[in-house]
Amino acid sequence: MKKKIKKINASILIIGNEILSGRTQDKNIAFISNWLNSECGISVSEVRIVPDLERVIIKSVLDLSKRFNYVFTTGGIGPTHDDITARSISKAFKTKYEYHKEAYAILEKYYGKKKFNDGRKKMAKMPKGAKLIYNPSSAAPGFIIKNVLSLPGVPSILNSMIENCKRYLIKGLKIHSKTINLFTVESNISKQLALIQKKNIKYVDIGSYPFFRLGKIGVSIVTRSTSIQKLKKINKELINLAKIKKIKIFKI
Amino acid sequence: MKKKIKKINASILIIGNEILSGRTQDKNIAFISNWLNSECGISVSEVRIVPDLERVIIKSVLDLSKRFNYVFTTGGIGPTHDDITARSISKAFKTKYEYHKEAYAILEKYYGKKKFNDGRKKMAKMPKGAKLIYNPSSAAPGFIIKNVLSLPGVPSILNSMIENCKRYLIKGLKIHSKTINLFTVESNISKQLALIQKKNIKYVDIGSYPFFRLGKIGVSIVTRSTSIQKLKKINKELINLAKIKKIKIFKI
Repeated sequence: MKKKIKKINASILIIGNEILSGRTQDKNIAFISNWLNSECGISVSEVRIVPDLERVIIKSVLDLSKRFNYVFTTGGIGPTHDDITARSISKAFKTKYEYHKEAYAILEKYYGKKKFNDGRKKMAKMPKGAKLIYNPSSAAPGFIIKNVLSLPGVPSILNSMIENCKRYLIKGLKIHSKTINLFTVESNISKQLALIQKKNIKYVDIGSYPFFRLGKIGVSIVTRSTSIQKLKKINKELINLAKIKKIKIFKI
Repeated sequence: MKKKIKKINASILIIGNEILSGRTQDKNIAFISNWLNSECGISVSEVRIVPDLERVIIKSVLDLSKRFNYVFTTGGIGPTHDDITARSISKAFKTKYEYHKEAYAILEKYYGKKKFNDGRKKMAKMPKGAKLIYNPSSAAPGFIIKNVLSLPGVPSILNSMIENCKRYLIKGLKIHSKTINLFTVESNISKQLALIQKKNIKYVDIGSYPFFRLGKIGVSIVTRSTSIQKLKKINKELINLAKIKKIKIFKI
């Protein structure tokens, strides 16, 4: 991984009718985002889920690749007619859509010459100039072109490939996070929380998330910052707020 | 619900840092999409997940509300500082952000005059002219303004409110779906699938989704159409394809 600079962001583009229709519950967003956060200090700033439609994919890739440091796409790089991600990205960047020599060799070796049919060959077609993201579980590689990294949609395969994205990424400052769980309702602390957030708007992000568990109502206060010191300071303030309000702090 | 017309689409805008950071696994996308499909004949054409940032919410609301028949937002309508959905939508549509009389009355009754503090009052603030989406589980209503419907982010509360969106929606033609599971790999049928899809591109959407379950590899072929007749015809072709290729069809 390359040298650290300050804030690096990414977006995720989920490509697939099956996620949009609700047939399949997406699992890749949380996985990629957690990995980027913890392993690379990169935060995800936007996610889009779009159908298997060329013009929509092209438009989304162009828009997101302009606005964010990286774009991760998932889905649409298999052998069937609805797998149009690589072709669409080629069109977006006006590069040729052609066989990638190494990908072709990897797939031919994996399937054997006899079983290397047209569908499988299609998985070696990529935008010209793309670099491979190796796939240790089912051979068919993903790729990176410019700042767009294309991964498959099947979570188990994607998970096995994610480490191979690292070499292409510039690392950002690690984002630390701390959660305090309070035995209260949001509206009881909303005013004070807003003040604490306002005072520290430059350094810390404070999120407030109600939950119901085991018949109890609580609020998780999640603080996020690149500075551990600032995070500790804020969390002291939050614990102090709980004391003043006589709110019990508890571990889930 | 109003009278049926042909194709109605929607988009979903998920608002919340906790989903983007991967801390929380989204459950609302699949739920809303399935409900819209089965209950209203409305298909979801795009999803966005954005942070709690006013300018991003405003831009997304304006863009999506222009491009789709409906926009469903989730999250950011609670009492804390990071709940800025209602205010942002007001700004997007250049309408006043003010107390909704009925919402105010509902919340005041629910909490009692003494406990109706500023945080709770905030939940009655909406874009001027908004209509309420009632909340049978925790009182705080959602709202609709123009073609944008705002719901809370907590899945159990959202689920309890979804039926109350129906009165505001124009129903589309029901989208039927059929799944055939084949004991094969995608590349074995990709060519034929592409041909069948091409022949029927106007009426049927064919998706192909590999899976691994109980140590077996399979492909789910999902067909979707507003016409049951077309769907039956295509599925006969698919079963025929399986016969010719000597592929076992199986139930999961």
